[in-house]
Amino acid sequence: MIKMYGFWRSAAAFRVRMALNLKGIAFEETMINLDAGEQHAPDYVAINPQAVVPSMYLDDGTCLTQSLSILEYLEETHPTPALLPASPVERARVRALALIWAADHHPLIVPRIRTYLRDKLGADDDTRSAWIKHWFSEGLRIGEARMAGDPATGKFCHGDAISIADLCLMSQVMGAKGFGVDVSVYPTINAIVANCMALDAVSRALPLKQPGAPASH
Amino acid sequence: MIKMYGFWRSAAAFRVRMALNLKGIAFEETMINLDAGEQHAPDYVAINPQAVVPSMYLDDGTCLTQSLSILEYLEETHPTPALLPASPVERARVRALALIWAADHHPLIVPRIRTYLRDKLGADDDTRSAWIKHWFSEGLRIGEARMAGDPATGKFCHGDAISIADLCLMSQVMGAKGFGVDVSVYPTINAIVANCMALDAVSRALPLKQPGAPASH
Repeated sequence: MIKMYGFWRSAAAFRVRMALNLKGIAFEETMINLDAGEQHAPDYVAINPQAVVPSMYLDDGTCLTQSLSILEYLEETHPTPALLPASPVERARVRALALIWAADHHPLIVPRIRTYLRDKLGADDDTRSAWIKHWFSEGLRIGEARMAGDPATGKFCHGDAISIADLCLMSQVMGAKGFGVDVSVYPTINAIVANCMALDAVSRALPLKQPGAPASH
Repeated sequence: MIKMYGFWRSAAAFRVRMALNLKGIAFEETMINLDAGEQHAPDYVAINPQAVVPSMYLDDGTCLTQSLSILEYLEETHPTPALLPASPVERARVRALALIWAADHHPLIVPRIRTYLRDKLGADDDTRSAWIKHWFSEGLRIGEARMAGDPATGKFCHGDAISIADLCLMSQVMGAKGFGVDVSVYPTINAIVANCMALDAVSRALPLKQPGAPASH
């Protein structure tokens, strides 16, 4: 069985957890407490020199890292249900949306960045909170601008089937809410999020439903 | 013919330029001067609401964005020479390496971040330079740790054929050098960079060989 190292709040682990659920792939998840610094333990760094989650072990002992790479791997090895459309141009649109969130905005607010801002730039809590809210909002604003009014947008980011783009959007929206960002101002995104939330595979994967999450939020 | 909007210094445009050259795909590149803020002009934002390069127009008028998405599109539509290996596990390793640089580190040092650090956090030139050097170095340190001693590493990031990972590594190393980062301390990376530089398709795509680049650096 697939063994994943994750964390309840990790956006990247959340993306992979949703994909595993959607494709009906059984997995076990071991939580690495990022708040307690467990990602820096020598045993974990030996697995993942970047000291981040997720890391995912296949049955043969192969270890995969980087959530977007894992999503592509799952798509190639478990193509049904598809999380990418069929045509290259449509796949490019889905991947571009995914990257706006997972590459251009999510890495800006992760623990190592927040730590650097505090320790090296002397940023106080308010300044760090403003940073986090700014970059979450930017990613959602750009996503809304890309999708609103685009006929390629449907019930989900691309048409009426959930895709890798939606997984990245969901992880970004849940993170934004967790940090107190106002996400009510993005109507296209909110409609898509509601459609994602209606899926059991997504709902079960939500950060606040994982072991270690705060009981209420 | 493919029309690309790029910029001489853009790491993301450099990745796409190398891929187009390697695959022998003819293209025209229009330079968007990021230093002059041309990416914020209404005409360009209408093309790319994120106000970044590259954007790439296909013959039928379709506009693609996000360099990693464009690389996947080129791979799907022009599979020879391949820039991804054949097996899903190998493809996952290549994509994970690519994402360490293109997703987790490059977005930390782009113009919009440097501007925010200056305008909102009051970071002076030295503080911003330290930020830039730190994140470039981190990405290269992690890449070196992932690749050194791994039998999957060869003349290039994965085996003896250039891949998407190498394009992302090249763009990160050229950027690091441009910002004065000491890249001499990563022997595995330096050997790979030398093998990439020996390829005409890579050499012709180098940032400093593009229109608008400083005559000497």
